[in-house]
Amino acid sequence: MPLPYRWLTSLMVRYNGSTILIDCGEGTQIAIREKGWSFKPIDVILITHFHGDHISGLPGLLLTMGNADRTEPLTMIGPKGLKKVVNSLRVVAPDLPFDINFVEIEGGEQAFSYLGLDIEAFRVKHNVTCYGYSISLKRAGKFDADSAKEKGIPLKFWNRLQKGETITEEGITYTPDMVLGPDRKGLKLTYCTDTRPVPAIAAHAKDSDLFICEGMYGDDEELPKAKDHKHMTFSEAATLAKEADVKEMWLTHYSPSLVHPKQYLRVAKSIFPNTVLGEDGKTVELNFEG
Amino acid sequence: MPLPYRWLTSLMVRYNGSTILIDCGEGTQIAIREKGWSFKPIDVILITHFHGDHISGLPGLLLTMGNADRTEPLTMIGPKGLKKVVNSLRVVAPDLPFDINFVEIEGGEQAFSYLGLDIEAFRVKHNVTCYGYSISLKRAGKFDADSAKEKGIPLKFWNRLQKGETITEEGITYTPDMVLGPDRKGLKLTYCTDTRPVPAIAAHAKDSDLFICEGMYGDDEELPKAKDHKHMTFSEAATLAKEADVKEMWLTHYSPSLVHPKQYLRVAKSIFPNTVLGEDGKTVELNFEG
Repeated sequence: MPLPYRWLTSLMVRYNGSTILIDCGEGTQIAIREKGWSFKPIDVILITHFHGDHISGLPGLLLTMGNADRTEPLTMIGPKGLKKVVNSLRVVAPDLPFDINFVEIEGGEQAFSYLGLDIEAFRVKHNVTCYGYSISLKRAGKFDADSAKEKGIPLKFWNRLQKGETITEEGITYTPDMVLGPDRKGLKLTYCTDTRPVPAIAAHAKDSDLFICEGMYGDDEELPKAKDHKHMTFSEAATLAKEADVKEMWLTHYSPSLVHPKQYLRVAKSIFPNTVLGEDGKTVELNFEG
Repeated sequence: MPLPYRWLTSLMVRYNGSTILIDCGEGTQIAIREKGWSFKPIDVILITHFHGDHISGLPGLLLTMGNADRTEPLTMIGPKGLKKVVNSLRVVAPDLPFDINFVEIEGGEQAFSYLGLDIEAFRVKHNVTCYGYSISLKRAGKFDADSAKEKGIPLKFWNRLQKGETITEEGITYTPDMVLGPDRKGLKLTYCTDTRPVPAIAAHAKDSDLFICEGMYGDDEELPKAKDHKHMTFSEAATLAKEADVKEMWLTHYSPSLVHPKQYLRVAKSIFPNTVLGEDGKTVELNFEG
């Protein structure tokens, strides 16, 4: 439940002028506004599952996006039943100046490509159907002038090929890989909340630059409660982060009873040192290496 | 729309251990929590109309009331269609441990009695069906021992009669009015938002101790906009307060564009001196006179 000074768990990913929002609980639009971010470029909304704290802010957000004069269609991705649930919530937002394309995830995992980003949805284990999401940005290889010369590629095409274009002239086809070295390390983030720790999480979070994971309970003694409510302890989240060999993990989705998450940070750090506590408005800019 | 440090318009009325809530926009449950008030005694929820900013916080509130182990039924009063709208929003809160009794208002006005309070709903003028509400608490007359003696009422009944009981013994019926003077002035508050100024408002707000009224626009020059969007200016609200001869008026439901309502307070005060600006968490205790 939303608390004073603790918004519900949500993630906004901004890349290249577009925005992906993951989950939208009650008050998420206020949290976005506190950051001073715009609603208009939200092109894709990913929903983990249909519990109120992850979706009940949606009608208000859609109204606000409509008030911001958005007309471009919005894509929404989520578990089966997404269209029915969202349209039911939209009883208070029936008229929007933009269309919504609903994409309901099939099966245990599904890959999508939007806005130049690769999105992977993977099923996790909660008391309703719930998905985690990985979002990846590929990085092309370095431009290799020697290789381009060697292959006799006309100079006038170099720039276009480097930008990813495929060009055909006089029956010859030139492809970007002809002028580029092997792909370099890109960026990856994984977002995962409302679940027990399951192998799919570590598998999909593998090598993420940022892994955002629920930590409903700080105290290891609350493990039975975590199992009951299909959530995780800090230790369980840290173990996943270690297995996935991520660069950094942010904990989030604290239980309202967890008033001082800081108290249990060392528990998580003892398992995965690069654990950071999520807090309202927490932001990071991820950049390519080197 | 909800803004950082400006919750959506809502009113909580607490009397005799029970609570009436009027409207529940996104974040209203957080505002209630900020006040440190309990969700559990909310026995009646009045809805003015079905715009998102007045109702979209309802599923979250209902979930929280469920989490607070409420089992007593809840009464909801609002415009026609209430049951359909609320049940549609409840797609994210389908299982609650309490029942909801829906009361859909018929016609232009309707009177109810709940929790020892008289509630009057009256139709106002917005771009969808919208109601204002007056809530009144009657105050019985003073105990009149001389009159009781004169009428030969047995002493043993005095206390029960004074408390409002009607008693029959040996074929004689004793009623409270036999020992009480005329009704004294009780308490009345009127809540009215999302409307143009219409005579029904002043009529129903008549002699209110507190009149809470929308003031969407501060500047008189925004009157055309107020007319367009079926809202009011501060001046129009103040004129209603003056006509209704209320004790005090609180302005609320400011436009997001009205960043500094204080700037226009003197405009309202020049018409109705006892105008006060509503703000987050504003509270007053109303007491009987004398």
